Amino acid sequence: MKAVGVIVEYNPFHNGHLYHIKEAKAQTHSDVAIAVMSGYFLQRGEPAIVSKWARTKMALKSHADIVVELPYAFAVQKAETFAEGAVSILGELQCTSLFFGSENGDIDSFLDTAIYTIKHKDELDEEVKRHISTGMSYPAAMAKAFHNVSDGTRALDLSKPNNILGFHYVKAILQDDIGMKPATLTRLSSDYHDIDLPEGPSHIASATSIRKSILETMSLSDSSSFLPEASAEELEEYAGTFGLWHSPENYFPFLKYSIHTMDTKELEGIYEVEEGLEHRIAKAIRTARSYSEYMEQLKTKRYTWTRLQRMNTHILTRAKKADIRSILAEKRPSYIRLLGMTKKGQAYLSKKKKELRVPLITKIGAFSHPSLDLDIKAGRVYSAPLKEPAQTMLTGQEYSLSPVIYDEENRTFLRT
Amino acid sequence: MKAVGVIVEYNPFHNGHLYHIKEAKAQTHSDVAIAVMSGYFLQRGEPAIVSKWARTKMALKSHADIVVELPYAFAVQKAETFAEGAVSILGELQCTSLFFGSENGDIDSFLDTAIYTIKHKDELDEEVKRHISTGMSYPAAMAKAFHNVSDGTRALDLSKPNNILGFHYVKAILQDDIGMKPATLTRLSSDYHDIDLPEGPSHIASATSIRKSILETMSLSDSSSFLPEASAEELEEYAGTFGLWHSPENYFPFLKYSIHTMDTKELEGIYEVEEGLEHRIAKAIRTARSYSEYMEQLKTKRYTWTRLQRMNTHILTRAKKADIRSILAEKRPSYIRLLGMTKKGQAYLSKKKKELRVPLITKIGAFSHPSLDLDIKAGRVYSAPLKEPAQTMLTGQEYSLSPVIYDEENRTFLRT
Repeated sequence: MKAVGVIVEYNPFHNGHLYHIKEAKAQTHSDVAIAVMSGYFLQRGEPAIVSKWARTKMALKSHADIVVELPYAFAVQKAETFAEGAVSILGELQCTSLFFGSENGDIDSFLDTAIYTIKHKDELDEEVKRHISTGMSYPAAMAKAFHNVSDGTRALDLSKPNNILGFHYVKAILQDDIGMKPATLTRLSSDYHDIDLPEGPSHIASATSIRKSILETMSLSDSSSFLPEASAEELEEYAGTFGLWHSPENYFPFLKYSIHTMDTKELEGIYEVEEGLEHRIAKAIRTARSYSEYMEQLKTKRYTWTRLQRMNTHILTRAKKADIRSILAEKRPSYIRLLGMTKKGQAYLSKKKKELRVPLITKIGAFSHPSLDLDIKAGRVYSAPLKEPAQTMLTGQEYSLSPVIYDEENRTFLRT
Repeated sequence: MKAVGVIVEYNPFHNGHLYHIKEAKAQTHSDVAIAVMSGYFLQRGEPAIVSKWARTKMALKSHADIVVELPYAFAVQKAETFAEGAVSILGELQCTSLFFGSENGDIDSFLDTAIYTIKHKDELDEEVKRHISTGMSYPAAMAKAFHNVSDGTRALDLSKPNNILGFHYVKAILQDDIGMKPATLTRLSSDYHDIDLPEGPSHIASATSIRKSILETMSLSDSSSFLPEASAEELEEYAGTFGLWHSPENYFPFLKYSIHTMDTKELEGIYEVEEGLEHRIAKAIRTARSYSEYMEQLKTKRYTWTRLQRMNTHILTRAKKADIRSILAEKRPSYIRLLGMTKKGQAYLSKKKKELRVPLITKIGAFSHPSLDLDIKAGRVYSAPLKEPAQTMLTGQEYSLSPVIYDEENRTFLRT
């Protein structure tokens, strides 16, 4: 059995994702698709619109065969760390290829660029450092450094978000010598950052625009044509059971409370609170009456919006520098948390699980690790805005739920 | 000018308090009454039903001349520490007498008992320790020890809550040699712990029963006959401005979030989390869907309900053992925070303030102290359940408000 890996957030799973995962299996001639997915909080520092369990169910109903969780310590991270964690898990699960969407669409550009940057690492690092010292953000500095050092001859535009991610996937594969063949396809959606749903006959929209529409209208009516039916069903069911779809604003009372109960020294101990940001944070929180007001006051040229959002998520989960650094010091995830699988995915895993070098976690309790503790904590924090008894129900799932099993032939869940 | 001190919480100010403060001035022939009052969180570990500013206004409209704040580190405490902090502040403000309500009503009983216990300290401490080791709560152990050691000859029943407080007031005066004459009067209310409003013609009810009625009916209709008009006005105004009256249940989402973001080691570092309570807390919070469910799961014979409530408040404010212990190591409050005064109170303070040995704080900013930082933090935590923009308005008051000034002759506030 042959597996293709995909690195996803499915926030929520939409038609673009459906196209991507179908193509992944087709183009790589794979029997199963393994999705490594962020959990409750995402790479860009936002809470997922619905829980990881609901997003797992969307994925399994839409051609994913195995869904595993990218631990918080690797997920709520800059592209490089996110990529390294995800690629490591897919390699461990013996995927023969990795398939990702990008603005560029040509895998040779990615390979060339990755090889080039590995070779010219010192030179590039020097350049990046120089640009950052002028007040540039890290991604901007990296794009510029690459452009300068490479003399502009490489085709990969590293200012595009999906090119950046893809570049780091490929680089991680090469650097860690993971036997996985990368492949890419041009994204159908015009722009990852589109914040409004497209007009006209397209059935592809960015996840950003879909979330915005759902959270603003508190309904799926405008976005449903951009979602597989399975996704709409799971989104509706989630809101019916838990009473909301999660938005950053829902967490503002807890973010505020968290900041209010820390002195500047404690704040400085939180991961990604760097270079005096603790003072900006303490000042902004005093007058901000909403998350958007707070972010407006916080933002600087130095840090990207997503970097600040990630920092806020770490303040919310009270993830300390020491905690995350000691997890990252292990270089790669020390376990694989299985969230769900189809029957075919189950068959694949039974074959491969004996060869795994890290534990495959199907239930909390038997295995203990600081990174898993952080995942559990993130789940509890994620549940905070829910009213009771929904909140206790959601946090209980973390302990009570075994991985979801989907019978793809009879289109029915054997276990949720 | 002669001042009488009273030690209060005014949660809310009711007819019993009115009777008490009038008698305090009359019986001690004092010109002014100085109230030292708990701030946002109270001795029994509950949030105040309305802010300290609103409670200050009630008091000034009802015969209090000066209202100062008992710092959090002394207020949310067992009776002994609460008493020591409050008595110290009243002594500093040169009150010539201290007037308190009690079940007993005879000041000689208090004096006798206090003298006796100071003399037999070691014997009593030994007895208390012995009872606690059998699983008894601290107050029960103390009442029993006193009864045993004194051979039952002393009249003061130390199982009654107001006798306990009064005993500690008198003991603090004697121990610290504070030149303040204690006096007591029998409380009119039948029982401090009454949880239901009395029926019949009485206009005196316990603060507990008044709060319960207000929070259950979300109106003052049943309780207004037990409140001076001034109190009802301030309670209504507070709810109109800030949108709620505070109850422990309002804080449950934040208490839960706070516990969820601490590991057991951090929890163990919180003040009053002793002897493995961190494990009980972590277990109880997993399934509790409300504060009352949580408290039901938490309670043991070993600790009184109020002791556990105080502990929860410290978890909520994230007040660490090290923080509070270093403040208490100074023995007495290192500043006096003025919340409000009448014109007569103002005249009294102008005369006395040069002789004060600790700073009189009228505005946050000029003076800095870890205990004041904790008061400020407690205020921010207190505001957490309020919706925005009310929350930001309330936390802003902590910085923007100067002490309230009430013109008692014209019955009007000169500054709020």
